[in-house]
Amino acid sequence: MSEPIQSLTRLREQFQKLPGIGPRSAERLAFHVLREPREFAAGLAQAILDVKDKVIHCRTCYNLTETDPCSICSDSRRDQGEIWVVEQPKDLLALEATGLVHGVYHVLMGHIAPLEGIEPQHLTLDALIERVRGGNVREVVLALNPTLDGDATALHIQSLLADTNVLVTRPARGLAVGSQLEYASVGMLEAAIRGRTQL
Amino acid sequence: MSEPIQSLTRLREQFQKLPGIGPRSAERLAFHVLREPREFAAGLAQAILDVKDKVIHCRTCYNLTETDPCSICSDSRRDQGEIWVVEQPKDLLALEATGLVHGVYHVLMGHIAPLEGIEPQHLTLDALIERVRGGNVREVVLALNPTLDGDATALHIQSLLADTNVLVTRPARGLAVGSQLEYASVGMLEAAIRGRTQL
Repeated sequence: MSEPIQSLTRLREQFQKLPGIGPRSAERLAFHVLREPREFAAGLAQAILDVKDKVIHCRTCYNLTETDPCSICSDSRRDQGEIWVVEQPKDLLALEATGLVHGVYHVLMGHIAPLEGIEPQHLTLDALIERVRGGNVREVVLALNPTLDGDATALHIQSLLADTNVLVTRPARGLAVGSQLEYASVGMLEAAIRGRTQL
Repeated sequence: MSEPIQSLTRLREQFQKLPGIGPRSAERLAFHVLREPREFAAGLAQAILDVKDKVIHCRTCYNLTETDPCSICSDSRRDQGEIWVVEQPKDLLALEATGLVHGVYHVLMGHIAPLEGIEPQHLTLDALIERVRGGNVREVVLALNPTLDGDATALHIQSLLADTNVLVTRPARGLAVGSQLEYASVGMLEAAIRGRTQL
């Protein structure tokens, strides 16, 4: 038996540590890197390092950013009195993509999940409360995931803000626009039925 | 709208250039790198560069290697008189994994495919013929893929070696061991029927 090619084996192992990459995919990726010009490999390697070296959390809203404060927090056209609370940076991106949020954000970096060992102190809740108590905040929109954990976290935040005059809201729930009623989940239907509005 | 985080966007774009990685996977991979410690990113980046910087082709058999000649060609226990001709380094790995090949290899780096613009001169055929004519070679095993292109390439090599005394063979074809006859392809059945052997 021949010795394996160490650097190829190592790259395969590294690729396999990535989510959703199995042994066969890792091998295909490693051979792909091997076939491509060195500039390709250099570009990929640099991009991987840059993400670790340049991306930080905004110290105001905890969104991912390369500048602190982030471009949203430092944008004078954004309504600083309206804070949209989300679980993850990805959720922020999804809301931003709609172009409908004119306020600013606060990224919790997760949700409360005692069974997974995620307690309130692991989130950026203190910073949120401090921001709200700092004044000038009119509304806090709890744009958490419509899940059990998201709801529990929302309730917790609501109780923390109970003694302030800030309006606490959450996005509407109901039928997914474009979906078909016959395929709607019980949860989706329940939200739609309980929250029915007058025409 | 906020400006995107440039380094994250760039990493997503780089991941998307890899085979089988779509926009969603690329995003998931990029966020994964972001979450992991810097050592993880550094290890991945280094492995990518190492593959390009350290892996070369053996100048004897054209297998991928970090030393020239490769560990197989320089292994005195291997039978240098028996050359197993394969299309790709991956095929060599598959044969090596059986532990049944005691000879050495020759990697063609492809097969003849005129329609795809792959002519004999694009392969390592000249080097193979030179090796064989160099003497001390008893047998050349054409372990090419059992496909039209593989067969055409095997025929071409056979004709190139016709004026030598070297034995030219190819691995047996027939029913895939462990498969079920009812699901065998016509090609597999044809090879099994034509090549039937006496018990």
